[in-house]
Amino acid sequence: MTAHWKQTHKNMMLFSGRAHPELGTQVAKELGIELTPTTARDFANGEIFVRFEESVRGSDCYVIQSHTQPLNKWLMEQLIMIDALKRGSARTITAVLPFYPYARQDKKHRGREPISARLVADLLRTAGADRIVSVDLHTDQIQGFFDGPVDHMHAQPILTDYIKSKYDMDNLCVVSPDAGRVKTAEKWANTLDGAPMAFVHKTRSVDVANQVVSNRVVGDVEGKNCILIDDMIDTGGTIAGGVRILKEAGAKSVVIACTHGVFSDPARERLSQCGAEEVITTDTLPQSTEGWSNLTVLSIAPLLAQTIHEIFENGSVTHLFEGSA
Amino acid sequence: MTAHWKQTHKNMMLFSGRAHPELGTQVAKELGIELTPTTARDFANGEIFVRFEESVRGSDCYVIQSHTQPLNKWLMEQLIMIDALKRGSARTITAVLPFYPYARQDKKHRGREPISARLVADLLRTAGADRIVSVDLHTDQIQGFFDGPVDHMHAQPILTDYIKSKYDMDNLCVVSPDAGRVKTAEKWANTLDGAPMAFVHKTRSVDVANQVVSNRVVGDVEGKNCILIDDMIDTGGTIAGGVRILKEAGAKSVVIACTHGVFSDPARERLSQCGAEEVITTDTLPQSTEGWSNLTVLSIAPLLAQTIHEIFENGSVTHLFEGSA
Amino acid sequence: MTAHWKQTHKNMMLFSGRAHPELGTQVAKELGIELTPTTARDFANGEIFVRFEESVRGSDCYVIQSHTQPLNKWLMEQLIMIDALKRGSARTITAVLPFYPYARQDKKHRGREPISARLVADLLRTAGADRIVSVDLHTDQIQGFFDGPVDHMHAQPILTDYIKSKYDMDNLCVVSPDAGRVKTAEKWANTLDGAPMAFVHKTRSVDVANQVVSNRVVGDVEGKNCILIDDMIDTGGTIAGGVRILKEAGAKSVVIACTHGVFSDPARERLSQCGAEEVITTDTLPQSTEGWSNLTVLSIAPLLAQTIHEIFENGSVTHLFEGSA
Amino acid sequence: MTAHWKQTHKNMMLFSGRAHPELGTQVAKELGIELTPTTARDFANGEIFVRFEESVRGSDCYVIQSHTQPLNKWLMEQLIMIDALKRGSARTITAVLPFYPYARQDKKHRGREPISARLVADLLRTAGADRIVSVDLHTDQIQGFFDGPVDHMHAQPILTDYIKSKYDMDNLCVVSPDAGRVKTAEKWANTLDGAPMAFVHKTRSVDVANQVVSNRVVGDVEGKNCILIDDMIDTGGTIAGGVRILKEAGAKSVVIACTHGVFSDPARERLSQCGAEEVITTDTLPQSTEGWSNLTVLSIAPLLAQTIHEIFENGSVTHLFEGSA
Amino acid sequence: MTAHWKQTHKNMMLFSGRAHPELGTQVAKELGIELTPTTARDFANGEIFVRFEESVRGSDCYVIQSHTQPLNKWLMEQLIMIDALKRGSARTITAVLPFYPYARQDKKHRGREPISARLVADLLRTAGADRIVSVDLHTDQIQGFFDGPVDHMHAQPILTDYIKSKYDMDNLCVVSPDAGRVKTAEKWANTLDGAPMAFVHKTRSVDVANQVVSNRVVGDVEGKNCILIDDMIDTGGTIAGGVRILKEAGAKSVVIACTHGVFSDPARERLSQCGAEEVITTDTLPQSTEGWSNLTVLSIAPLLAQTIHEIFENGSVTHLFEGSA
Amino acid sequence: MTAHWKQTHKNMMLFSGRAHPELGTQVAKELGIELTPTTARDFANGEIFVRFEESVRGSDCYVIQSHTQPLNKWLMEQLIMIDALKRGSARTITAVLPFYPYARQDKKHRGREPISARLVADLLRTAGADRIVSVDLHTDQIQGFFDGPVDHMHAQPILTDYIKSKYDMDNLCVVSPDAGRVKTAEKWANTLDGAPMAFVHKTRSVDVANQVVSNRVVGDVEGKNCILIDDMIDTGGTIAGGVRILKEAGAKSVVIACTHGVFSDPARERLSQCGAEEVITTDTLPQSTEGWSNLTVLSIAPLLAQTIHEIFENGSVTHLFEGSA
Repeated sequence: MTAHWKQTHKNMMLFSGRAHPELGTQVAKELGIELTPTTARDFANGEIFVRFEESVRGSDCYVIQSHTQPLNKWLMEQLIMIDALKRGSARTITAVLPFYPYARQDKKHRGREPISARLVADLLRTAGADRIVSVDLHTDQIQGFFDGPVDHMHAQPILTDYIKSKYDMDNLCVVSPDAGRVKTAEKWANTLDGAPMAFVHKTRSVDVANQVVSNRVVGDVEGKNCILIDDMIDTGGTIAGGVRILKEAGAKSVVIACTHGVFSDPARERLSQCGAEEVITTDTLPQSTEGWSNLTVLSIAPLLAQTIHEIFENGSVTHLFEGSA
Repeated sequence: MTAHWKQTHKNMMLFSGRAHPELGTQVAKELGIELTPTTARDFANGEIFVRFEESVRGSDCYVIQSHTQPLNKWLMEQLIMIDALKRGSARTITAVLPFYPYARQDKKHRGREPISARLVADLLRTAGADRIVSVDLHTDQIQGFFDGPVDHMHAQPILTDYIKSKYDMDNLCVVSPDAGRVKTAEKWANTLDGAPMAFVHKTRSVDVANQVVSNRVVGDVEGKNCILIDDMIDTGGTIAGGVRILKEAGAKSVVIACTHGVFSDPARERLSQCGAEEVITTDTLPQSTEGWSNLTVLSIAPLLAQTIHEIFENGSVTHLFEGSA
Repeated sequence: MTAHWKQTHKNMMLFSGRAHPELGTQVAKELGIELTPTTARDFANGEIFVRFEESVRGSDCYVIQSHTQPLNKWLMEQLIMIDALKRGSARTITAVLPFYPYARQDKKHRGREPISARLVADLLRTAGADRIVSVDLHTDQIQGFFDGPVDHMHAQPILTDYIKSKYDMDNLCVVSPDAGRVKTAEKWANTLDGAPMAFVHKTRSVDVANQVVSNRVVGDVEGKNCILIDDMIDTGGTIAGGVRILKEAGAKSVVIACTHGVFSDPARERLSQCGAEEVITTDTLPQSTEGWSNLTVLSIAPLLAQTIHEIFENGSVTHLFEGSA
Repeated sequence: MTAHWKQTHKNMMLFSGRAHPELGTQVAKELGIELTPTTARDFANGEIFVRFEESVRGSDCYVIQSHTQPLNKWLMEQLIMIDALKRGSARTITAVLPFYPYARQDKKHRGREPISARLVADLLRTAGADRIVSVDLHTDQIQGFFDGPVDHMHAQPILTDYIKSKYDMDNLCVVSPDAGRVKTAEKWANTLDGAPMAFVHKTRSVDVANQVVSNRVVGDVEGKNCILIDDMIDTGGTIAGGVRILKEAGAKSVVIACTHGVFSDPARERLSQCGAEEVITTDTLPQSTEGWSNLTVLSIAPLLAQTIHEIFENGSVTHLFEGSA
Repeated sequence: MTAHWKQTHKNMMLFSGRAHPELGTQVAKELGIELTPTTARDFANGEIFVRFEESVRGSDCYVIQSHTQPLNKWLMEQLIMIDALKRGSARTITAVLPFYPYARQDKKHRGREPISARLVADLLRTAGADRIVSVDLHTDQIQGFFDGPVDHMHAQPILTDYIKSKYDMDNLCVVSPDAGRVKTAEKWANTLDGAPMAFVHKTRSVDVANQVVSNRVVGDVEGKNCILIDDMIDTGGTIAGGVRILKEAGAKSVVIACTHGVFSDPARERLSQCGAEEVITTDTLPQSTEGWSNLTVLSIAPLLAQTIHEIFENGSVTHLFEGSA
Repeated sequence: MTAHWKQTHKNMMLFSGRAHPELGTQVAKELGIELTPTTARDFANGEIFVRFEESVRGSDCYVIQSHTQPLNKWLMEQLIMIDALKRGSARTITAVLPFYPYARQDKKHRGREPISARLVADLLRTAGADRIVSVDLHTDQIQGFFDGPVDHMHAQPILTDYIKSKYDMDNLCVVSPDAGRVKTAEKWANTLDGAPMAFVHKTRSVDVANQVVSNRVVGDVEGKNCILIDDMIDTGGTIAGGVRILKEAGAKSVVIACTHGVFSDPARERLSQCGAEEVITTDTLPQSTEGWSNLTVLSIAPLLAQTIHEIFENGSVTHLFEGSA
């Protein structure tokens, strides 16, 4: 026999793109390790160059990138990092996308449109990703866009634990900003001790395409402390409008909660002035509370770190807040 | 030069599985052609054998199958037909699935589940399908499960045209049977001259998982002629319960409308006795009105035939009822 | 250095489809483990739902399914189980198909036919299977249909050991039921101490396609105890006819042996009344001896268990009865 | 509308490798076209260089190669030609392999062997072949090794037409050289007016692996004019031995017929001296009758030309001698 | 027969990304067609949305994008456009990238680097591109990165025709800015009537990695009118330095010529002040001569238009300036 | 819980093709292991048969083949070995090609040519190779042709160490035989203590395609001991001509050094008589010094063995002479 058997070992290595280095550092700290030193820079014409300072051969590599502005650049950087890991003989490559880019384009709304969320999944696969970790996908079906395991985590427990610790549960009401999020609101209501629900209903004009003619609150919010929820807030128009309508409908107070605080202009202005008591979000995207006194940012790092730990240790991530992994 | 150029021709051929031969025949009739004669039979142990009686070489082939019971058998038959076309040198192969099987399993509801709707898309691709034609997918995101063009057609205009021709528009109300279909109901309401909307809200028990404790109607249905809609009706429990609740809430009458009348036992019994004035569906699945006097079946064949015609002629299917193709 | 190496472990998990749970249980028992608890049920319209009750992350998973009636359903169930394992982060997935479905359709007999046995291999690959284990494929070439390792095991030693222990070797004769199985019969003859051989030759009519006009025994069977062999017996017509002809040719007794006892109607009736002394088969498919006194079922479970054990332990399966793996 | 529709044309182009240029030329002549001028040469170290002298853009390209010695070189040449066509924007690429190389390695005879016939199919696919045309594959299952259409043609009618025209049918007997070709012999017998059959049976030693201890004729050949058939003859040992045994068994004369005359050393010597009246083959491989007076070579070119014609014209090849395409 | 053959037509459609709309418009004009109207916009967070205003079904689609700053955004836009065409049933999709992005990262210079030029080819393939058209790739090997046809065109004739028409040929000298472009300079010299050559040689320090210690001109440039060439000029440091050295070595005048004028800061300043008589480039990237009096921009549009025309008409592009297609 | 975790082991197995068994044996010796016994033989018609004598299940397999004449045969043998390993359940397969075949065809020099170097990469991938190890690829871009990790090693240190140990460094000059290798010569010069450089410049005729009209030395070689370098030497014409020109230009002596000594006829004659003091190469291809007194062959085996060791042990190969892996 010419066999030479010896014990096998595995190695966890963590990499962070340049979009949100604080998040990568925080996840590393939670895991008790350090980010692998990485050279990443832009050429004069915008081409990205990446090189890892240590061998990645045979390692289980986790590549965190936050898809904030300029989003396409950071996506490309993550793809290039994954390509470099593949060619550098990594054993497995897990792409960690706390906020999945292009998630809203998860279907053709009309003919001759792309399905960019599927495209992103395919690009990650082509570059070399074996697995995806993400948080609160815009629709659950996006899991099915990737041809491999997707560990889909939920930030809701982080948000609801904070709310429970700070607010009186007796007078809460969970509100969805539109008809499409009623199901999500239902889950929140169940977690928040069976709180009552409401949502904002938009009536569209028959004459002018896509013109919303009026909004009204369905459900009783009078005198309630409302938790207005969404998976992501971009420019904040819908949400700020929701706060106004809730107030008009007699809501005592409104707290806004979302997983992904995209906060594109003029969201900061709109939300800080809309009359909401507090805006709660996580740092799946880089956040700054500077000049925005009632913004609360909860860290997603412990959830990501636990997920990576369970993946590496072949544990179950299902028990982490009963995510779908 | 050794080139020998000559004009190219294309050829439309239509094939039908054995699940619902009437539908195939009807589509062929609408197209003014005949189904290609096909031998299909079961071996004693259930293995399916298929052979086409004419050459398919260089042809554009459309394979219609209806995914009724026994659903897995008919899916396998369609896959085998596609394989035979691929190996028989068909130029293109379009799988026509009026009712997309396993559409409800379009995500992992919890950990360690399959995403069977994605699997079905991959199986069709592997067998050799270049394109999918389907009607009213359970969720639009399923379009993104197939790595190629999906012509996603909508039966709503067929159903609403019928309703408009038969019922008085003045007193209508569109009702969704649960929170998840409110968006769809909104589209119906817009088409039905901006009819008002309502939906049935289920409150789940905090103590017992998945136990619904009570249902109530959100929106004003008193004295209204309600159109209770859904994409598919399986055993009919939710819908029949919805009719009851609407009646209790003062609805004057209830008409049920759905694209896919699966009608598994005991749906026929439930729906014919639930008090609904009429149940309207299409024949994406085989239907029988025998012993069910208030069931109305509208033909999906013209829509499928027009779609196939446009595909073959390189026309646009977007203009057909503004589907998403 | 940011490397964190630690020892690697592997984990064997065994799963069984619903087609033949006794076989799965028996294999588990042989391996000294338990089947992983699995929820599997049919929706009202026949769609299958599967969920595993334990984490499968990082595990080597073996999915046993027996392809008995309704065969297409059980194939689909196995594909869905494999999809769920893939999405649940299994390390490797081995599909165990004791009886490979659609094995008889391993070529185009005429134009415009499928090659369903290749299709099945591709479907398993697409769902996520890394490897196939099967027993006595209808033709050895089916190994080449799968793009990956196939552990092809042989039941012959199980059958011949039984025959050797029960029957007198001195007067045996191995008989093939048709010209296509003569090579297999030759292997049996070699194993059974170089027993003489014979086979049944069918003469087809020149005038009527596929009509067999007469059968005759080639080889001397007079006064012999004949072992009539085949890889699978479906309706039993050929085999029962073979027994009759052998008797007419002076055979003293006939014993029938096959690996896969499909026994579709009217096989039970035919074979129990054909005059054979004993019918010997294995439980690659569910078997019942009830009301069939001379049916002997030998267990395939030890062979499957040993194969799985060797795969998991990186041993050789070639030494197990010199199979082709 | 910005569409600019214009008629489409297609173009047949025929290419020949250097292994057997006469065959390519003959096929071109039958089709009434000329081979596309091609530069092909070997670099000093054996690397092959290929370039086409005319544009192949948008054309349907047929690449004929004959897999004679040095077989691996000619296979590589064909792969390189296909790669050049793919990169030169050919519309479709059909690989024509009259004799499919490595067909005998179509399964693992024992563990740790390749399945080279599947590998060849995959290599052709990878290089860019859309379709395969071949003649008399060693086993029909090889059709299933290619992931696409395989037009599998049969030379039998060419051979039997010749025999019918030259020999008296009354006293013929079709003989298979071993048990594995009895099925093929049966087809010949049916075509030759239901001629009787026989075959040579080899008994292997129990003590020494693979040692044949004796051969005997099964079936009555006394006084018959025997047609000894096979798909391919390599070194001719089995066939020459078969002639001797047939003569010993009283055969009046023996004619040998095969599709693929590989005739590796010492086949020419063996077969010209074995006592056979005539050896009939085709030119799927280059043949020379020089110094071999009783060798008859029938041309395969018309069959290949007709097949290519039907493929290009989208006709059926099934009607050409009822091949399996 | 159920066949229904009819003539086939093809359709050319041209699409332009937003990076350099003038180029798309110019190519369309040269082809005598119009760009297909396309909606393309950015969401507030930078996600790109694309929709075509006309049906693309069955059409041959050409998607032009210029990879200028912000380069990753424009690459992503092109991928999304291709995805939308694929899902909209385009017959073929050709990605036109006049300047191929990430071409300089065509190999690993050291360990643990990406090969981004290969990654870009794979991303285009994954999105759905069937073919690539590009101009003067940084290295010819990049053609081999794409799994399909690449029509690789050369701008050299455009540049040399201009030079021939404007400058006296008698006293020219072709100069490469470094050792790596000597081969390219050789081609220029051959085209420019066998002009003499020279190049700038850099000597690197042994002590400090990558530090260039001195440059010198190899070849005789004294009194010559030098044409200093390169495929692309980014920040212009090397080229401006080359002009200085050539002047020091006695060059009478220097003209700079390159295909891709990237001209990242501070290229405009450097090159307009370096003493070169003229800087000649093409508009593969958007160019502005404003404030840069000696910049000459030649249009690449006719070459791209001719290439697209030949592809659509199945002509040869090889004859267009003997490119490598 | 039904999990059964146990420690994992890995196993290194080394295989050698028949092209250059001494190299495989030497690499094994360096690694302190033995080559796995392998049966490999040719069938009479040139088909290759391979079988491994030991189980390869779960092992990390390294397949060394040297691509000497007949090159296509040895490439096919390596592909077949890889296929057998894949089907025999190897854990990983690394193809070791010290001299990468078809490396010179790494681009289309003109239209309608193959890119055979990419084809070779794809064939290896298709057969089942997970990784490639090679030495001094003709161009670095070939790394990008393989869809996976390529460990690209450099023989330069072996060659320069030898030169440093034998020759006086003070008077050295590094010479490239043509413009295309100047960059490589620059690397040599840096390693050889910053030795001066020169190269041979070929002037081509404007009238006759590809006809070289004259060669001249660029750089000062008078009185120098020249090291004339190249990656590979095939027939030796360019190199022998280079020696002559260097001598004419006053070189004191010339030593030739290359990694791959292909030495096709008449290289041995040319190089042994060209006046070079010594010809230094490695044994990436089989070499014989018999009758060639001034040929020095340095062993590549230690470099290959170290590379394999580092791969197996998950070490870094970058530190081995700073290769690009």
